[in-house]
Amino acid sequence: MTNLSNTTNQQKTSPMPFGRYKAFEPVTVPDRTWPSNKITRAPRWLSTDLRDGNQALIDPMTPARKLKMFDLLVKMGYKEIEVGFPSASQTDFDFVRELIEGDRIPDDVQISVLTQAREDLISRTAESLAGAPRASIHMYNATAPMFKRVVFGVTDEQCIDIAVRGTELVMKYAEKFVPELVGSQDFGYEYSPEIFTQSDTDFALEVCERVSDVWQPEAGREIILNLPATVEMSTPNTYADQIEYFSRGLTRREHSAISLHPHNDRGTGVAAAELGMMAGADRVEGCLFGHGERTGNVDLVTLGMNLFSQGIDPQIDFAVEGGIDEIRRTVEYCTGLPVHPRHPYAGDLVYTAFSGSHQDAIKKGLEDLERQAEEQGISVRDIAWEAPYLPIDPKDVGRSYEAVIRVNSQSGKGGVAYVLKAEHKLDLPRRAQIEFSRVIQGYTDTEGGEITPERIWDVFSAEYLNKETPLKLDSVHTSSAAGEKDQLKAQVFVDGELRELVGEGNGPIAAFVAALNELAADEQAQGNPVYASRGDVRVLDYAEHALSEGGDAIAAAYVECAVGEKIVWGVGLDANIVTASLKAVISAVNRAS
Amino acid sequence: MTNLSNTTNQQKTSPMPFGRYKAFEPVTVPDRTWPSNKITRAPRWLSTDLRDGNQALIDPMTPARKLKMFDLLVKMGYKEIEVGFPSASQTDFDFVRELIEGDRIPDDVQISVLTQAREDLISRTAESLAGAPRASIHMYNATAPMFKRVVFGVTDEQCIDIAVRGTELVMKYAEKFVPELVGSQDFGYEYSPEIFTQSDTDFALEVCERVSDVWQPEAGREIILNLPATVEMSTPNTYADQIEYFSRGLTRREHSAISLHPHNDRGTGVAAAELGMMAGADRVEGCLFGHGERTGNVDLVTLGMNLFSQGIDPQIDFAVEGGIDEIRRTVEYCTGLPVHPRHPYAGDLVYTAFSGSHQDAIKKGLEDLERQAEEQGISVRDIAWEAPYLPIDPKDVGRSYEAVIRVNSQSGKGGVAYVLKAEHKLDLPRRAQIEFSRVIQGYTDTEGGEITPERIWDVFSAEYLNKETPLKLDSVHTSSAAGEKDQLKAQVFVDGELRELVGEGNGPIAAFVAALNELAADEQAQGNPVYASRGDVRVLDYAEHALSEGGDAIAAAYVECAVGEKIVWGVGLDANIVTASLKAVISAVNRAS
Repeated sequence: MTNLSNTTNQQKTSPMPFGRYKAFEPVTVPDRTWPSNKITRAPRWLSTDLRDGNQALIDPMTPARKLKMFDLLVKMGYKEIEVGFPSASQTDFDFVRELIEGDRIPDDVQISVLTQAREDLISRTAESLAGAPRASIHMYNATAPMFKRVVFGVTDEQCIDIAVRGTELVMKYAEKFVPELVGSQDFGYEYSPEIFTQSDTDFALEVCERVSDVWQPEAGREIILNLPATVEMSTPNTYADQIEYFSRGLTRREHSAISLHPHNDRGTGVAAAELGMMAGADRVEGCLFGHGERTGNVDLVTLGMNLFSQGIDPQIDFAVEGGIDEIRRTVEYCTGLPVHPRHPYAGDLVYTAFSGSHQDAIKKGLEDLERQAEEQGISVRDIAWEAPYLPIDPKDVGRSYEAVIRVNSQSGKGGVAYVLKAEHKLDLPRRAQIEFSRVIQGYTDTEGGEITPERIWDVFSAEYLNKETPLKLDSVHTSSAAGEKDQLKAQVFVDGELRELVGEGNGPIAAFVAALNELAADEQAQGNPVYASRGDVRVLDYAEHALSEGGDAIAAAYVECAVGEKIVWGVGLDANIVTASLKAVISAVNRAS
Repeated sequence: MTNLSNTTNQQKTSPMPFGRYKAFEPVTVPDRTWPSNKITRAPRWLSTDLRDGNQALIDPMTPARKLKMFDLLVKMGYKEIEVGFPSASQTDFDFVRELIEGDRIPDDVQISVLTQAREDLISRTAESLAGAPRASIHMYNATAPMFKRVVFGVTDEQCIDIAVRGTELVMKYAEKFVPELVGSQDFGYEYSPEIFTQSDTDFALEVCERVSDVWQPEAGREIILNLPATVEMSTPNTYADQIEYFSRGLTRREHSAISLHPHNDRGTGVAAAELGMMAGADRVEGCLFGHGERTGNVDLVTLGMNLFSQGIDPQIDFAVEGGIDEIRRTVEYCTGLPVHPRHPYAGDLVYTAFSGSHQDAIKKGLEDLERQAEEQGISVRDIAWEAPYLPIDPKDVGRSYEAVIRVNSQSGKGGVAYVLKAEHKLDLPRRAQIEFSRVIQGYTDTEGGEITPERIWDVFSAEYLNKETPLKLDSVHTSSAAGEKDQLKAQVFVDGELRELVGEGNGPIAAFVAALNELAADEQAQGNPVYASRGDVRVLDYAEHALSEGGDAIAAAYVECAVGEKIVWGVGLDANIVTASLKAVISAVNRAS
């Protein structure tokens, strides 16, 4: 890194004991090819929500919640689902039996179960599968040096023997308990050298080769070699290097599915999976919203949606049953753990912009998409998505635009304007937006917090629509004739007293302003103090639009007035466009008073 | 990817409209060098918690909370702190004034403020800094095509002009409002081409060159070129490619700090920052726990702790004021948003293992560290950290081991054994662990949920220590002489009736068992139905250890007995090692009855 001379930016040594730790030493792959690869299709997915995800819950799922999770996974489109660790837990064993005996496994779904490489456990595991329409056994043993030395006290040869003998036992007990599946594609085998990332890569490769020697993968008889990053050890590129190295070195590659199983200890589980896919992996194991031991497994929702946002079929439906929020609610119910408000794609706040400049840009971007759709005569939902600060269209996952713009003290005119337009069809002129956003900022700066669309509307109504003093319009009559000035007669409450004002001008607004100025002059002449210091009313700008289509639509009028030295906007709503504009003038005058 | 023939694993096309999206097209860098680089030191950090982080809160920080956050950042060791967007918010302007006028900026800390490239805003921004001891202005304008076209309607030349003119205006208004800082290292300038990742990289480079032409960086007068991934566009390697490409192409590289500003829309913000650092960046902007618009900015806690775990000085103290939990509580208080239970390093669950095999491995790993420390005669805290499933020592961030092991229905013997050892110093023999973990699993399988250490102890006490029928030991006398069998006389309550048992054998346990078997034979002879079907008691295994050091320590005895056909463990605690072992035999017999 560049050595900067800026002495004010010297950082200090942390008092933390970083010297206790050493940098991870990954396998060296100087001729790696993965950084130039692109992901062009979805991997095979395995959901381990019911196994790795479930085992690390404060309150593991009840059988009813497990079934709910299983049904959700099936509906979303997951075809490989690890459903438990039946030899380690009676609950898990019973759940596998329930799935099989209750005939709950669809024709295109393969369940799998995890086991350690011990004979009693393998036997019990195979027993749990009896009668299954199709199934896979997933066996693991420890190949990482620390585990061999400290946890199990085994040599490399003993470690290999455990894997080899375990694979033989899987085949033996499969023959015993699921003989009808054996030899067909309906019985699968998955082997994991645990923890792959902490193992010597050559040793992990050797163990996998020896396991494959037993299983004998061939066409129609694949082996799944799952390479767990059970603990993230380093930056995600090192996992990709390990995967590329392993993939290159593996024999029978075409009959082997290389599977990733990333965890998220360094917050880079998603990246590790993506770079691992670039490095040649075929399959990814993870959990919805990243549950699992400690920091969790890689998050299948983020991975799938990342593909979606790049135009790649994720092969999973993240809008099933009403959208991603419904998926989130189900997972929260089953796991008892929340999804964070900033979770990519599913968090409460992730389609929301609070900043004024972001809001302004989003508003313009959405308008541009509508313009494109109109020009091409197609639905805006068929336009290629491109909008500032929104990686995907929230509607594609069942979210709405309503929450896109949220207003707090950091928001500018864009957000306020967006709310008025989206919720009330009011398209404020730019300077009116600025004026009103200052009004809103006055509230947010003093009250603090977020201001809701309802509150924005209340403030807007109170400020622009409902002020009735000193003036309130009662009725209005106009007459116009070619070549003559417009004549206007209006019944107006002035400080509660109904009076008739008469004026003329180039159009009704000018005539009404003339009448108002005459009224003010009269009142000044009579010594009314309200009008003593007030200068004339002048109209500076004017805009009007319908709130909806059709002849009986409500019109919104916006008038910028100079009232003496004050510059203020007024807003009027009425079915009659003339009345709306006069109400806007009165709104401005009342605000200035 | 490999085309697998396994037909059961066919995935289906998602019904989601992925065709609306297109893959991001990154700059091509076939000769990239970053994948072979390693991070060897911390980057310069900028915290934007008070600006980017604050602007996207449902409830932006009050001035009091801002001060609390500022003080936390300073204490943790952040030297560059972006404190607001003073031209966009009166609250922000006032906060900058409060920092300066309240003399709250330490000598080694440089505050910075963000502004858009408009004269009125730049002037207001510089005004906010008047009297600052040192400060930096951070200006941005949009260089991304969509922004130029849709949001601002500017050409490339106009876009460059905005950046160039804005830089001139920063210099002009700095002369006006902070003349005493200008020309020294106490006044800094940062420019961001927004959104860098979505901009043509050559164009972003050109704009930066033109900005540098104005600023004229040289020794002692750096320019910070901040390259925001305000929206994550693709896999994190593409950001690294962009950074390497930019860094290579930049002139005056040695006087320029290349700064990363990653967001987390694809869940890979941390990875993008790390790969960007490998690609040559000098500086990273982010927020504690990843706050900021939508999915948030990159998380400075995870980034810093990732360095720490690799033995690299993070230059930040993540254990300040009592540890990472205290930092978390302060940030949660200031932001009003939670830190997720699975957040790397700070989540509630991330130093916790629920799985039995994980618990077992951790237990052995911690024991191995203690053994190493003992062998080397040093504190275990000075041993190089290496433990299964724990990337760092929780104690290094003020967390404890107490919560490392938590027991639910998915846990095995390891967790239960750990709790008994950690909380009660009981070191159960392996088969006793298995027996007791089945007892516990009986509870968790039926009751569901997590079982607390207190509950584990209650169950253990009720099962092993407090059963008093049919037998309860009252007192015991032994005599031993060389060459003779040990003599034992014990007062024992048998079904509530105090009786004297006498026996002899090779040691007190054998003598006691002999006495018990004699008692049983007597009772059988007298037709007592309790003893009718019971076979002899035989001792199969035995272990005993002290619970603490010193002569008056309590001893724990574990005895595995065959009672007829039942194999059961018993446990006894007593200051007298003989009494403890007899209690253990009684515990086993009572459990078998």
